[in-house]
Amino acid sequence: MKTLLLKKEEVRELISMKDVIGAVEEAYKAFNSGQVEQPDYIGMHLPSPGSEIDFKLSHYKANQLISMKTSSGGFADNPTAFGLPSGMGTILLFDARSGALICVMDGSLITGLRTGAAGAVSVKVLARKDARRITFIGTGNQARMQIRAIREVMNIEEIHAWDNSADTLSRYKSDIESEFGIPVVIASSKRDAVEQADILITTTRGKGSLVEADWVRPGTHIVAIGTDQRGKQELDPEIFRNAKVVVDSIAQCSEKGETWHPLDRQIMTKDGIHGEIGELLLGNKPGRENDQEVTIFDSTGMAIQDNTTASKIYSNAVKRGVGALFEFFES
Amino acid sequence: MKTLLLKKEEVRELISMKDVIGAVEEAYKAFNSGQVEQPDYIGMHLPSPGSEIDFKLSHYKANQLISMKTSSGGFADNPTAFGLPSGMGTILLFDARSGALICVMDGSLITGLRTGAAGAVSVKVLARKDARRITFIGTGNQARMQIRAIREVMNIEEIHAWDNSADTLSRYKSDIESEFGIPVVIASSKRDAVEQADILITTTRGKGSLVEADWVRPGTHIVAIGTDQRGKQELDPEIFRNAKVVVDSIAQCSEKGETWHPLDRQIMTKDGIHGEIGELLLGNKPGRENDQEVTIFDSTGMAIQDNTTASKIYSNAVKRGVGALFEFFES
Repeated sequence: MKTLLLKKEEVRELISMKDVIGAVEEAYKAFNSGQVEQPDYIGMHLPSPGSEIDFKLSHYKANQLISMKTSSGGFADNPTAFGLPSGMGTILLFDARSGALICVMDGSLITGLRTGAAGAVSVKVLARKDARRITFIGTGNQARMQIRAIREVMNIEEIHAWDNSADTLSRYKSDIESEFGIPVVIASSKRDAVEQADILITTTRGKGSLVEADWVRPGTHIVAIGTDQRGKQELDPEIFRNAKVVVDSIAQCSEKGETWHPLDRQIMTKDGIHGEIGELLLGNKPGRENDQEVTIFDSTGMAIQDNTTASKIYSNAVKRGVGALFEFFES
Repeated sequence: MKTLLLKKEEVRELISMKDVIGAVEEAYKAFNSGQVEQPDYIGMHLPSPGSEIDFKLSHYKANQLISMKTSSGGFADNPTAFGLPSGMGTILLFDARSGALICVMDGSLITGLRTGAAGAVSVKVLARKDARRITFIGTGNQARMQIRAIREVMNIEEIHAWDNSADTLSRYKSDIESEFGIPVVIASSKRDAVEQADILITTTRGKGSLVEADWVRPGTHIVAIGTDQRGKQELDPEIFRNAKVVVDSIAQCSEKGETWHPLDRQIMTKDGIHGEIGELLLGNKPGRENDQEVTIFDSTGMAIQDNTTASKIYSNAVKRGVGALFEFFES
């Protein structure tokens, strides 16, 4: 049995952001079409403070592949102690017809890519058609990834950005302006940044509410990325009261997404969630219906996004003859 | 970051049965010393009838390694359709200090080895010191593995064997006699086989009770291997009524081991379980106390056994310079 091994740099070359957006859209539709088995993920906290390792599994019946992603994070001492990044990842792909391990690929890039693509997919169905200005609260790696993805689906004319670190913010401005030629305005305040937004994207570590309800203009589309665990928060839960709330997974978002907060505060009920994004993409529920409504997309991240993205990388690798074959046993 | 890759044949050469017995004993002790984090495993049923794939995880705090074993099974068409075995396995080892993936090894052999070793460890603490005759109900691969392991801890003079297939039984007799020089008596009946036993080992697929209570002589040690899922069964639950019952994990065995049956039939209560084998090995509870008692060891198999066994294979590989290094990313 031959298993394909793919390194990080090969993974990077093997997939375009357009491909990832297609893969994530496919994942969302599959999830809402009974094509996905996706058990609860297993997370383990480890002795190094704040560190953890997660295992996320999914079976996509249509492509007959099973994916298992392990990702570690929060190992703050790794760079100095071991010369390693603070988080790493690996993805295994199995053929569901035989149980065979067909691929082991580095998984450091996939979470970032498919999370960026998630924002772009939501923009397609939930942002105003005339949206041109994006505001970022939080300007780390994922705030870059969101631009890489969203520019594939809309024309971004201006970015407003806020971060609690002035250094991070000015690095972001110069990086984005040189990579994409899109002007970045450093906001004088969070409030000012939010008031400029056609699309508001929060990508912080989710340590508390950062955006107040009365700052949000009618017609804004909000992409809530940073909250993927119970206890994290980025938005004033009052924003949810009159908004159209769309999630990747009702089960996940009501337990550990941004949506948990307005549910907990009884600002809305689960029935008040408009739907899962796959339902919108399948045409079973409407997306944005007018230019006045505030829409929120709450993304906690699903294993099936890893599955469809890794499957695309794998099939591109096979097509182009990239990667090394390793025979774990002779058959 | 360099990851060590180990093939099946290398795994085979890298570990002796003595090492596996040591690793399993260490695993049991660690489990009962608060050294183990072992989440519920994830099992997925797949479209091919009877097929499944399981993911079993554990963190062993003392050696600071995390193991993740995937094992597939029940793919009956694999040999003809794909030239692959009906079940396969892979083990990943992670360094708990950094989250780094340090090893990917073939995992086809480890489940069989550590399950064999489990029987031997139980013989050390639960069989009579003068035990010489072993009876096997079921004569497949695991009935061979049990002998390979138990001969490391006692002198086996005679084997009595029963199987519902005469072919399997006669192959077993000739294999065992030529590999170990231990005479194998083909039993005239299950009852006769059981009555000859100092140690009785059941290694069938667990499709129903095979051993009646009044066949079991005082002083017999029973190793119940075949039942590792709800619905499987090998023993008349009445055997448990007056026996000393020892399990690998109370949580697992009372849910899906042989022990579930007497609990379900109210022949015994959970409190009637004498203990977990790690408690006996640590000296916190007695093993066999006289030559008359019937002892039962119910083994459902634990992820920590994979962890300590794979860790031993890994450290032997590093010591002997065996295996290939693969760099999933440059660091």
